[in-house]
Amino acid sequence: MKLLREKIQDEGIVLSDGVLKVDSFLNHQIDPELMKEIGLEFARLFKKEGITKIVTIESSGISPAVMAGLELGVKVIFARKRKSLTLTDNLLVSSVYSFTKQEENTIAVSSQFLNKSDRVLIIDDFLANGEAAKGLIDIVKKSGASIQGIGIVIEKSFQKGASELKNSGYRVESLARIQSLRDGKVSFVEEFEEVKA
Amino acid sequence: MKLLREKIQDEGIVLSDGVLKVDSFLNHQIDPELMKEIGLEFARLFKKEGITKIVTIESSGISPAVMAGLELGVKVIFARKRKSLTLTDNLLVSSVYSFTKQEENTIAVSSQFLNKSDRVLIIDDFLANGEAAKGLIDIVKKSGASIQGIGIVIEKSFQKGASELKNSGYRVESLARIQSLRDGKVSFVEEFEEVKA
Repeated sequence: MKLLREKIQDEGIVLSDGVLKVDSFLNHQIDPELMKEIGLEFARLFKKEGITKIVTIESSGISPAVMAGLELGVKVIFARKRKSLTLTDNLLVSSVYSFTKQEENTIAVSSQFLNKSDRVLIIDDFLANGEAAKGLIDIVKKSGASIQGIGIVIEKSFQKGASELKNSGYRVESLARIQSLRDGKVSFVEEFEEVKA
Repeated sequence: MKLLREKIQDEGIVLSDGVLKVDSFLNHQIDPELMKEIGLEFARLFKKEGITKIVTIESSGISPAVMAGLELGVKVIFARKRKSLTLTDNLLVSSVYSFTKQEENTIAVSSQFLNKSDRVLIIDDFLANGEAAKGLIDIVKKSGASIQGIGIVIEKSFQKGASELKNSGYRVESLARIQSLRDGKVSFVEEFEEVKA
């Protein structure tokens, strides 16, 4: 998605070889117009999958997920992230390790909002090692619903998440795919590689 | 806002005289179509205020704020909520006490996204005792920006937040105003009282 790649080039801040900060339009300040375009693109990519529900995780997944949900005409569930779990009323839970924050979080979705007949699109802001996505997959599987695809705003293709998820048979659609953050520079996966992938 | 009041009557769960759960369309599962209507209504109410930025708080404020931002053509900043603060790089911070969770949280906004010339609309999902709103006001004030109004999805009018904020001179626009949650029943502030208020 060209608009998104341009936004990343213009406003993204490379903090290290592994960390890209996009606080000006996605992770802290949000650009609603860009989120709308992202939602339209996810809807275009997954419109044939008969999606009935979108599952994301708080907080940065919410905007792209809600815009996609608006376009696909389906509701969005955001998983809650918690250090420890106190409520246990019919929750589907999973455990997510954050490499960035070096901490383990429990994520939870109320079981009443997902059922066997649901065809789920998982949406998240970043895909790196795939921990959050795997946690969401785990939760959706526990509900008995099927996973029709995974939509990612920014994929760090040099980390293992995307290839692992694809090897597990999931359709992963990432709107921007980053090849490298070396030397403080954002390099995207080349177009011809995108076609091969 | 009639659509919202109906949704609250149909799907809201009264947990006690003080607590209303709206997990099916706002606080856990999100109804994107309703969020769009809410965004349109906030935009209609505040369109003459020359808003340049919307400030909200994660996670449930994000959807209504982004929809309002889309309609008003402005960016949205969501304050981060933290148990404790480790990062201190140019953050505007405030302290918010949650009566529901009985815990103190630090909320933070990066100072780079707000400046003196900004005309801010604060948006949040609930207004009860006004703790979150006061924390956001505190942060916006620290940036030097002006506060043009406060948009609330659901106001619990029987708690002190709304009247305190209005007494402090803020324009508060709440799309649904709840008079009481007694006997497991949601009663809204009557229309004629809304006009008087």
